[in-house]
Amino acid sequence: IRTGMSEVIYCPGKSVDQTAQIALRLYERTGRVLATRAAPEQFDAVRALIPSAVFHTLARLISVGEFPAPKNPDRYVAVLTAGTADTPVGEEAALTLEWQGTRVERLYDVGVAGLHRLLDQLPIVQGADALVVAAGMEGALVSVVAGLVSRPVVAVPTSVGYGAAFGGVAALLTMLNSCAGGVAVVNIDNGFGAACYAHRIVNV
Amino acid sequence: IRTGMSEVIYCPGKSVDQTAQIALRLYERTGRVLATRAAPEQFDAVRALIPSAVFHTLARLISVGEFPAPKNPDRYVAVLTAGTADTPVGEEAALTLEWQGTRVERLYDVGVAGLHRLLDQLPIVQGADALVVAAGMEGALVSVVAGLVSRPVVAVPTSVGYGAAFGGVAALLTMLNSCAGGVAVVNIDNGFGAACYAHRIVNV
Amino acid sequence: IRTGMSEVIYCPGKSVDQTAQIALRLYERTGRVLATRAAPEQFDAVRALIPSAVFHTLARLISVGEFPAPKNPDRYVAVLTAGTADTPVGEEAALTLEWQGTRVERLYDVGVAGLHRLLDQLPIVQGADALVVAAGMEGALVSVVAGLVSRPVVAVPTSVGYGAAFGGVAALLTMLNSCAGGVAVVNIDNGFGAACYAHRIVNV
Amino acid sequence: IRTGMSEVIYCPGKSVDQTAQIALRLYERTGRVLATRAAPEQFDAVRALIPSAVFHTLARLISVGEFPAPKNPDRYVAVLTAGTADTPVGEEAALTLEWQGTRVERLYDVGVAGLHRLLDQLPIVQGADALVVAAGMEGALVSVVAGLVSRPVVAVPTSVGYGAAFGGVAALLTMLNSCAGGVAVVNIDNGFGAACYAHRIVNV
Amino acid sequence: IRTGMSEVIYCPGKSVDQTAQIALRLYERTGRVLATRAAPEQFDAVRALIPSAVFHTLARLISVGEFPAPKNPDRYVAVLTAGTADTPVGEEAALTLEWQGTRVERLYDVGVAGLHRLLDQLPIVQGADALVVAAGMEGALVSVVAGLVSRPVVAVPTSVGYGAAFGGVAALLTMLNSCAGGVAVVNIDNGFGAACYAHRIVNV
Amino acid sequence: IRTGMSEVIYCPGKSVDQTAQIALRLYERTGRVLATRAAPEQFDAVRALIPSAVFHTLARLISVGEFPAPKNPDRYVAVLTAGTADTPVGEEAALTLEWQGTRVERLYDVGVAGLHRLLDQLPIVQGADALVVAAGMEGALVSVVAGLVSRPVVAVPTSVGYGAAFGGVAALLTMLNSCAGGVAVVNIDNGFGAACYAHRIVNV
Amino acid sequence: IRTGMSEVIYCPGKSVDQTAQIALRLYERTGRVLATRAAPEQFDAVRALIPSAVFHTLARLISVGEFPAPKNPDRYVAVLTAGTADTPVGEEAALTLEWQGTRVERLYDVGVAGLHRLLDQLPIVQGADALVVAAGMEGALVSVVAGLVSRPVVAVPTSVGYGAAFGGVAALLTMLNSCAGGVAVVNIDNGFGAACYAHRIVNV
Amino acid sequence: IRTGMSEVIYCPGKSVDQTAQIALRLYERTGRVLATRAAPEQFDAVRALIPSAVFHTLARLISVGEFPAPKNPDRYVAVLTAGTADTPVGEEAALTLEWQGTRVERLYDVGVAGLHRLLDQLPIVQGADALVVAAGMEGALVSVVAGLVSRPVVAVPTSVGYGAAFGGVAALLTMLNSCAGGVAVVNIDNGFGAACYAHRIVNV
Ligand SMILES: Nc1ncnc2c1ncn2[C@@H]1O[C@H](COP(=O)(O)O)[C@@H](O)[C@H]1O
Ligand SMILES: Nc1ncnc2c1ncn2[C@@H]1O[C@H](COP(=O)(O)O)[C@@H](O)[C@H]1O
Ligand SMILES: Nc1ncnc2c1ncn2[C@@H]1O[C@H](COP(=O)(O)O)[C@@H](O)[C@H]1O
Ligand SMILES: Nc1ncnc2c1ncn2[C@@H]1O[C@H](COP(=O)(O)O)[C@@H](O)[C@H]1O
Ligand SMILES: [Mg+2]
Ligand SMILES: [Mg+2]
Ligand SMILES: [Mg+2]
Ligand SMILES: [Mg+2]
Ligand SMILES: [Mg+2]
Ligand SMILES: [Mg+2]
Ligand SMILES: [Mg+2]
Ligand SMILES: [Mg+2]
Repeated sequence: IRTGMSEVIYCPGKSVDQTAQIALRLYERTGRVLATRAAPEQFDAVRALIPSAVFHTLARLISVGEFPAPKNPDRYVAVLTAGTADTPVGEEAALTLEWQGTRVERLYDVGVAGLHRLLDQLPIVQGADALVVAAGMEGALVSVVAGLVSRPVVAVPTSVGYGAAFGGVAALLTMLNSCAGGVAVVNIDNGFGAACYAHRIVNV
Repeated sequence: IRTGMSEVIYCPGKSVDQTAQIALRLYERTGRVLATRAAPEQFDAVRALIPSAVFHTLARLISVGEFPAPKNPDRYVAVLTAGTADTPVGEEAALTLEWQGTRVERLYDVGVAGLHRLLDQLPIVQGADALVVAAGMEGALVSVVAGLVSRPVVAVPTSVGYGAAFGGVAALLTMLNSCAGGVAVVNIDNGFGAACYAHRIVNV
Repeated sequence: IRTGMSEVIYCPGKSVDQTAQIALRLYERTGRVLATRAAPEQFDAVRALIPSAVFHTLARLISVGEFPAPKNPDRYVAVLTAGTADTPVGEEAALTLEWQGTRVERLYDVGVAGLHRLLDQLPIVQGADALVVAAGMEGALVSVVAGLVSRPVVAVPTSVGYGAAFGGVAALLTMLNSCAGGVAVVNIDNGFGAACYAHRIVNV
Repeated sequence: IRTGMSEVIYCPGKSVDQTAQIALRLYERTGRVLATRAAPEQFDAVRALIPSAVFHTLARLISVGEFPAPKNPDRYVAVLTAGTADTPVGEEAALTLEWQGTRVERLYDVGVAGLHRLLDQLPIVQGADALVVAAGMEGALVSVVAGLVSRPVVAVPTSVGYGAAFGGVAALLTMLNSCAGGVAVVNIDNGFGAACYAHRIVNV
Repeated sequence: IRTGMSEVIYCPGKSVDQTAQIALRLYERTGRVLATRAAPEQFDAVRALIPSAVFHTLARLISVGEFPAPKNPDRYVAVLTAGTADTPVGEEAALTLEWQGTRVERLYDVGVAGLHRLLDQLPIVQGADALVVAAGMEGALVSVVAGLVSRPVVAVPTSVGYGAAFGGVAALLTMLNSCAGGVAVVNIDNGFGAACYAHRIVNV
Repeated sequence: IRTGMSEVIYCPGKSVDQTAQIALRLYERTGRVLATRAAPEQFDAVRALIPSAVFHTLARLISVGEFPAPKNPDRYVAVLTAGTADTPVGEEAALTLEWQGTRVERLYDVGVAGLHRLLDQLPIVQGADALVVAAGMEGALVSVVAGLVSRPVVAVPTSVGYGAAFGGVAALLTMLNSCAGGVAVVNIDNGFGAACYAHRIVNV
Repeated sequence: IRTGMSEVIYCPGKSVDQTAQIALRLYERTGRVLATRAAPEQFDAVRALIPSAVFHTLARLISVGEFPAPKNPDRYVAVLTAGTADTPVGEEAALTLEWQGTRVERLYDVGVAGLHRLLDQLPIVQGADALVVAAGMEGALVSVVAGLVSRPVVAVPTSVGYGAAFGGVAALLTMLNSCAGGVAVVNIDNGFGAACYAHRIVNV
Repeated sequence: IRTGMSEVIYCPGKSVDQTAQIALRLYERTGRVLATRAAPEQFDAVRALIPSAVFHTLARLISVGEFPAPKNPDRYVAVLTAGTADTPVGEEAALTLEWQGTRVERLYDVGVAGLHRLLDQLPIVQGADALVVAAGMEGALVSVVAGLVSRPVVAVPTSVGYGAAFGGVAALLTMLNSCAGGVAVVNIDNGFGAACYAHRIVNV
């Protein structure tokens, strides 16, 4: 297997039945299942076939099987979010990392409107081997964080906001233009992709 | 006169001759001239008619007549820029304010990629009665500054940047979405307009 | 507390339960609550926990506690709207201002299609210390108002309109390009932000 | 001939030679020539072949032959512009109308930033049989004028402005969304097309 | 009354009650009501108060009172649509014209994919005093019609289509760029506005 | 060789020297050269090395070697353009087809503003085995042509136009939305690509 | 009949009744019906009137009458899709082709993330007389396929994806810019149009 | 020093003199200079002050001082480009990496139009510790490469292309939507930023 992560189910656009059947087949072959962007009804269908399935509500993830202990407890990915509304994307990233055996430190709700909250946690920020930063609206947190660290930042624009946020486009542009360096960007709301990317970085 | 600022010449699209004639007429009527976005040739033509004309190269401003002493030296507008390329917009704002008799404190090149440069100047930032913040690329400086002050921030996106900066649109969206509150935005590169606005605020 | 306004609940994306719990906590700590963009069900949940809660239907605001008398009755913010459909944004701004102790004069439905309605109220318009102008569709009211006053105008584009209104983008661009000067712009439908900004201006 | 106007030369993208040859052929067949968006060099080439050719610098038009007296002197089209930079578009429209034998009244530089200039001319505005209104930046003049008259307004967005004017798009959207009614819009900077349209209206 | 049409109710965003109350007030004052973009429930509420109200389903119009006989039966506006899905916009325009006492000829479903349907009706097309042309998708009908007539065409882009139709933007751009001349454009789906404009043209 | 067309030089972004050297190498290997979007100086450099080189000014093509007689004279591609400004794109397509040995019939300047010019040539249009249709501005010619034929139409939007033509985007959208069926679209101004595609169709 | 395909019902925007009535009329006249983008309720209504109607769930097609045997079994169109979510568009294309008597080979879920799946099927890909390639998200499959074949590729962007996929725009741009040559593009999700186009190609 | 890379001069917008002075100061302090996006005249000015300065024409870089031997010769970053026009961006990335002491393997002109060129180099591609992939037009190379490796891909959209390439936006969207996973994106043409990012990855 190329990436060690390819067998993950992306739930949107799949019927409740399809989701459950794909999960069952995966479970029978590998003993583990991870499904992203799951709706509660999709979870119910999966649990009917696989009673040990767990629903991570905030992250909208279904998992079957253990989250392994970190392979390398000295290395961790810091997952930061700007506001409470960014938590689902942050948790999608954090749990995906832990599912892959990568240690995570969460720093949520540390947006730049209250800079001290971020600066109070500087050691955790600067000690990370890679960082996932999820932010919506204007996404300025990414630039500030990237200015504080020397490790790669994986930026995730979120669709949080209204009006001129344009469903995440404002945050996306902010992150692509980050003048701080050390920033690369994934698709809007793609916490899963950011986690896979950060996992590849820390397991170089 | 409604705003005290209406008699300002906007140079783009005016011929060298037109610019000089308009300046002369204004000079004869009021003894003072301010012209914005002036090209060097436009300045040459003005100086040929009005020898006391001064060219503020960086700000691309022509002035004739004194910059008055601040009417109220206790109040000042802080003009901040993120990077050196934002200086022309910052200077357009700063000189326009001083031309109107408003005291200015300049804090240039304090972008979020090096946060300490901003935090080192916190007393000046927090002591201002209004702030003009000019930034291009991702424009994150606005959100950070707005999170540190309780006074109104006039945000000026600049066309600095390339690619996904889209000529100032990325910075514009950042500023419109600023989650910090206390931010209102003027047109891209409109240092002049930001100055007029800040002047109205501090002269309430 | 930096701005005196930071403890306001933004309801969208929060569950009915979350909203009520956050409101309760805020109420117990400060005795006052303001929540914006509230749905009726969110209000029901809040009132179940805090019986004195009030729902301002038009403005979609929940408040608990008194609206204070104006601190400075000589100064007021004029809140103007162009059409009836802009009323919710106008009321969000007006009540937010009053909640902060700033006097408000409302001038609703004075769009430029019937210019006389605006000109009939010229003394109130020109007597204001700051103005909040909310308009959708083409947003021309802002330019006209800004041409009549010498005080700062806080422009709020609204998402009112259809087709080429593009959810408020047409009005946003109009306001950013206002040739009248003295205009700064907040995000689409952001009556709350406009109010906070105007409050800062008049309490300089 | 269907419209009486089809034999007009659009100069951009034509070489100096092509322009002159096409003009000569037209002249030999009809004794009259009108060419729009002409560069000075194109005019020089035309005049070399047709000495009676005239260059209308501001309007960027070349004409050969008489401008006829108005066929119907009681009817006129009012051509309004918002700012001095809109004059070329206004003149393109005005001269095209006069070339077709339609009487024109010009009201230039009557933008909404100084509303009184427009209101001072109300009788001319309200007496027109059709109106061409050219405006750039935010284009608000169209809505105000349309609110004052009961005759059709042909709106021409101009590319005047910078930043979020987006080369005329902001004005275009303003005009398409005009809440005043009685407005229809032609392409950005299309003074010629607006004139043809207004001519068709008054010659119903 | 300036336009004779200002007393028309625009239903979207109004509650069932509001709509009925506004209609009643209008009815009591003028004896006539026209309401556009009405939902069936809004009609039910109106009819409960005004039993003589009529619902024009296809056009989504509510009317109370007579449609007058054409004031000038020699003059008519041709209303053309490209496809069946454009009928609601076409009918909104046609009935609005008839409500104002202007004669209408309808030519529906004459899109350019079957050019003969249009060419078969050439006398009606070319005999009209003004034309309203509604088309979605690529909107090419406007250019073809404008090439066949010497009277003004009021173009209405519709939101019919999918994908790269972008909710009417493709048709809007087509119409603004019409190389045929004699075209001016109103907002997407704005059959009402097109009718008011055409009415002004034929009643010059 | 997969397509028989891969050895074509795309000139933009190549220096005069690079262009000439690449042409020479190609000439020495195959005895033939085709270069697209060539500037006059690039042609001069090529002719200095290959005296038999020919410059097709209108099409901006450089060729070395014979244009072969059509392989199948019974089959032809009709190349249509809407206006004179579309000729360069039309010629790029036509010559590229002839270079590949495909017979071409040219129908230029048959835009929908003068429909009769197109209808006069109906037999040539309807006799073609494939059609390339190049049009700028609103691009309506494609829909009309596609409604008249039962063979595939390769649509080429051109960047001809101004204002809301947006450099070819308006024509591109028109063509993608063509309600006539039988239309597929290539990139803006891509006459070369359209020719290759049409060549593949007729040589099935 | 010009195209042999014009009598196809496009269901969106038609009521259940309208759909059934149009289908019945078509059935009575021709004995065959094809309806695209049908909702289950629309199918129910059709089957109530025409019991032999069949619903192709995945393709969202209703058919009445036989799918003919391929007229020319030696020629086939390969229909490729990138991911499972693109299957509806692929099936719309494949069944439309078969309905017209064109042989189809399906290659589904061969996106570039697992290149070997595509390369494993190279003989089928390279043996096709035309190819329909449907892909969403970044749509890269089109470029890869076009690089492998010498026959025309009809590219269909799909609206599959989220965030910066912008409802199919990202895939549309990818396909329009395909550097591989031999690609022409239809509207987003337009499997039906792609099939008609490919049918025209192979039946040249 | 935080990143070891902060002392790099970005030349655009700096005068020839400014560039040379900044370079000199940097040289005197550190003995080394790297300047990006340099124009030939800027290089001349630098060399006048620092005779040992070298101009890397293709990469538009000025360097003073040695490129160090790779710190870790076992690890390398593969830099891939799709076409010759992408070489400047590729070289900017490659030289920036080598300047920082990271080993680079270059694979240029391996775009998906000729897939075999990429597949022929599979061992180098799959042996890399990180990859920088620069591509313009449709940018499909990124998705194909990411599907072949298990290491992080830093994607750089380039502004190569025309028409619907929109100056790099098409490639940017492609890369953000890459369905292959393991991709993160930097700004259009930002080879420098991609190099810094890849350097951080391999030096974890
Ligand atoms: N939330 C997500 N966002 C983006 N890609 C995902 C996500 N979840 C899963 N994937 C990818 O989608 C693939 C599965 O897609 P599918 O075969 O349609 O279920 C997985 O192998 C992952 O690489
Ligand atoms: N740099 C500037 N940006 C925006 N507006 C300006 C600028 N400079 C001057 N103005 C405004 O433009 C008006 C003069 O415009 P004009 O009559 O065209 O010269 C002045 O009254 C100012 O309000
Ligand atoms: N369908 C429509 N599209 C655009 N404007 C309309 C429409 N129907 C009515 N109007 C205008 O909207 C005004 C009424 O707006 P309101 O006061 O919000 O009901 C009328 O006077 C008309 O000018
Ligand atoms: N899925 C589809 N996408 C695009 N066009 C379609 C589709 N299905 C049918 N059509 C076309 O739409 C026409 C019927 O449109 P209508 O008369 O509105 O039912 C048919 O003749 C087809 O050319
Ligand atoms: Mg927060
Ligand atoms: Mg700096
Ligand atoms: Mg109103
Ligand atoms: Mg003016
Ligand atoms: Mg139809
Ligand atoms: Mg022509
Ligand atoms: Mg798949
Ligand atoms: Mg290449």
